[in-house]
Amino acid sequence: MIYLDNGATTFPKPASVVTEVNNVLKHFSANPGRGGHKMAIKASEIVYNTRIKLAEMFKVSDPSNVIFTNNCTNALNTVIKGVLMSGDHVIISSLEHNAVLRPIEKLRKSGVSFSIAEVAENDSEKTVNNFRDCIQENTKLVICTAASNVFGIKPPFERICALCHQYGILTCVDAAQGGGVFDFNLSASSIDYLCLAGHKGLYGPMGTGVLIINCDTVPDSLTEGGTGSNSADYNQPLVLPDRFESGTVNCPGIAGLGAGIDFINKRGVNNIYRHELNLVQLMYSNLKEMDKVELYTDYPKYACYAPVISFNAKGRDCEEIADVLSEKYNIAVRAGLHCAPLAHKSMNTFDRGTVRAVPSIFTTKQDIYRFISALYKIIT
Amino acid sequence: MIYLDNGATTFPKPASVVTEVNNVLKHFSANPGRGGHKMAIKASEIVYNTRIKLAEMFKVSDPSNVIFTNNCTNALNTVIKGVLMSGDHVIISSLEHNAVLRPIEKLRKSGVSFSIAEVAENDSEKTVNNFRDCIQENTKLVICTAASNVFGIKPPFERICALCHQYGILTCVDAAQGGGVFDFNLSASSIDYLCLAGHKGLYGPMGTGVLIINCDTVPDSLTEGGTGSNSADYNQPLVLPDRFESGTVNCPGIAGLGAGIDFINKRGVNNIYRHELNLVQLMYSNLKEMDKVELYTDYPKYACYAPVISFNAKGRDCEEIADVLSEKYNIAVRAGLHCAPLAHKSMNTFDRGTVRAVPSIFTTKQDIYRFISALYKIIT
Repeated sequence: MIYLDNGATTFPKPASVVTEVNNVLKHFSANPGRGGHKMAIKASEIVYNTRIKLAEMFKVSDPSNVIFTNNCTNALNTVIKGVLMSGDHVIISSLEHNAVLRPIEKLRKSGVSFSIAEVAENDSEKTVNNFRDCIQENTKLVICTAASNVFGIKPPFERICALCHQYGILTCVDAAQGGGVFDFNLSASSIDYLCLAGHKGLYGPMGTGVLIINCDTVPDSLTEGGTGSNSADYNQPLVLPDRFESGTVNCPGIAGLGAGIDFINKRGVNNIYRHELNLVQLMYSNLKEMDKVELYTDYPKYACYAPVISFNAKGRDCEEIADVLSEKYNIAVRAGLHCAPLAHKSMNTFDRGTVRAVPSIFTTKQDIYRFISALYKIIT
Repeated sequence: MIYLDNGATTFPKPASVVTEVNNVLKHFSANPGRGGHKMAIKASEIVYNTRIKLAEMFKVSDPSNVIFTNNCTNALNTVIKGVLMSGDHVIISSLEHNAVLRPIEKLRKSGVSFSIAEVAENDSEKTVNNFRDCIQENTKLVICTAASNVFGIKPPFERICALCHQYGILTCVDAAQGGGVFDFNLSASSIDYLCLAGHKGLYGPMGTGVLIINCDTVPDSLTEGGTGSNSADYNQPLVLPDRFESGTVNCPGIAGLGAGIDFINKRGVNNIYRHELNLVQLMYSNLKEMDKVELYTDYPKYACYAPVISFNAKGRDCEEIADVLSEKYNIAVRAGLHCAPLAHKSMNTFDRGTVRAVPSIFTTKQDIYRFISALYKIIT
């Protein structure tokens, strides 16, 4: 199978990730932080090691600020619901995923208002100004994706966050599609909250997500429960990461995520990004040559796009194209709205959705040629 | 190692569970419900199969009512926060875990009141009456543990739920320690919400939890986001299980949980319970003979206790006993409050905590003899 659905989850996982999950599940599968016996201590170390690796990768000084969640959606919900209160205003970009839009739409019913700032492709100045225009006196938070999960467009999120800081506005970046391909340096950034999927560009298993808190404004907790700390207290502990890690964490998954980060470090984030973007550029150039293909973005220039491409075949249903690619050519892409109706509205593809192709570090040029060749046969 | 910390998480996992996680991670690790290609469909089937297995095990007719969470704490938070509103009253048992107490303590600050109904050991009549005495006009929900995670005491939760139904009160059972050892039949039960840990008695991996909704009152969602369904809608879909499964689920973990359920079905829930309770009874009888050991419950009779035992050595710190058992004898138990201060207050062990020992299906009589022998050496 040629797997180009890495925007949903990366496949295959590095062998070391599979081995590590297997190893922990088999040999060290005690409950971390819940006991003082040798295996529980070992499990705690495993979890802590991944925390350190994430802190190093994203350059935050205190690993306690790295919170494990079960997915990126949970990290985003934690920020959104833990920061915003009735009367607050939040700005989101026009490229946000339902993981941002749906919790905010819910909060809207209880008195939180929001504005959508249009991301102008390849026009950072205009995009930043669009965000500026949305700022109100009661704006508390801005949320911007690190890259559209549909179109790959990378908004100037660092500039947006820096602008918002000037106004005392908290900043959150949804890096579901950015982790492992963009090089983040949170110690020199205006990003207050970074939300990550463990199972995409970080090459960990599904069931892992990360919230990094890079400021002093700690959100309220979304869930409370046993943390293995301050057990006598009926109140949720305030200390990080415990405040946000109630109940048993996904120890084997987190171990696998640690192996994923080692894998990335060995290859180099920038090398991974370059490899994947080259493949997307190759796709783009070939698709551009096909009369019957519609593309929606400009050429995906280095530093301006995540390695994600969306297209349609004129007069054909996106689902049909994806089905034939799967059934006849054993090529996995994804079709539809990709849980991002807002982004489709912004790019005028809301009515029909798109076919999306996303490579990973394991994707080869040969894979892309076969994909292009198959698509060409389907549409002609 | 002799592992008697199965109350925190079961170890080892059945070989089939490890194999299944490994297999899915290696071969079918696409995102379930997020694409129409072959591997995504296979991943969806894997998740659905575990849903069906859980529906069959707990006897609910519609597998859609089986919701995957990341742990039991999340399932409990979903019920508590999705059902209770300002002005509501909730009754909880005196044996509840911090996974119940802490979210309720939080809600207390926003106008939810609660009462604690004392569980009278081995006196169902009195216990049920204690719950009855707590009922108020605004009581909306009752939460009762299936068994104390510290003392193993099993409250008459079915009777309590039936009583509450007479008053139109919703009922929730925390079966973190009951799943896989007690035989639930939700189709003939007054339990509205059953919360489960996937990684304890169900023998799945950490990172899995379950909420079964057994009534028409569907809680509000705790998180919203992409569900792969109704993507065009800014509102969270109302349909189950999507309403509660935002973002990517733990596909390999859920696959492992499915293998855990197969394993239990092969052995038989009742056989597992009998095996484990026999071992606890063996521990109890031996500990009872030791002058220097304090036990806190009556003899753990069949059907009245989960296979969990708590004790202390007179004049010795519980942590010290656990440490020596681990360091010198390679025996894993857990010491402290076990995230259940309420239960300790109820049993007068709040000041010192307890040593807790919990066997699994893999624990042997020989393990128990060695544990007893080691403990005897330590305390004499």
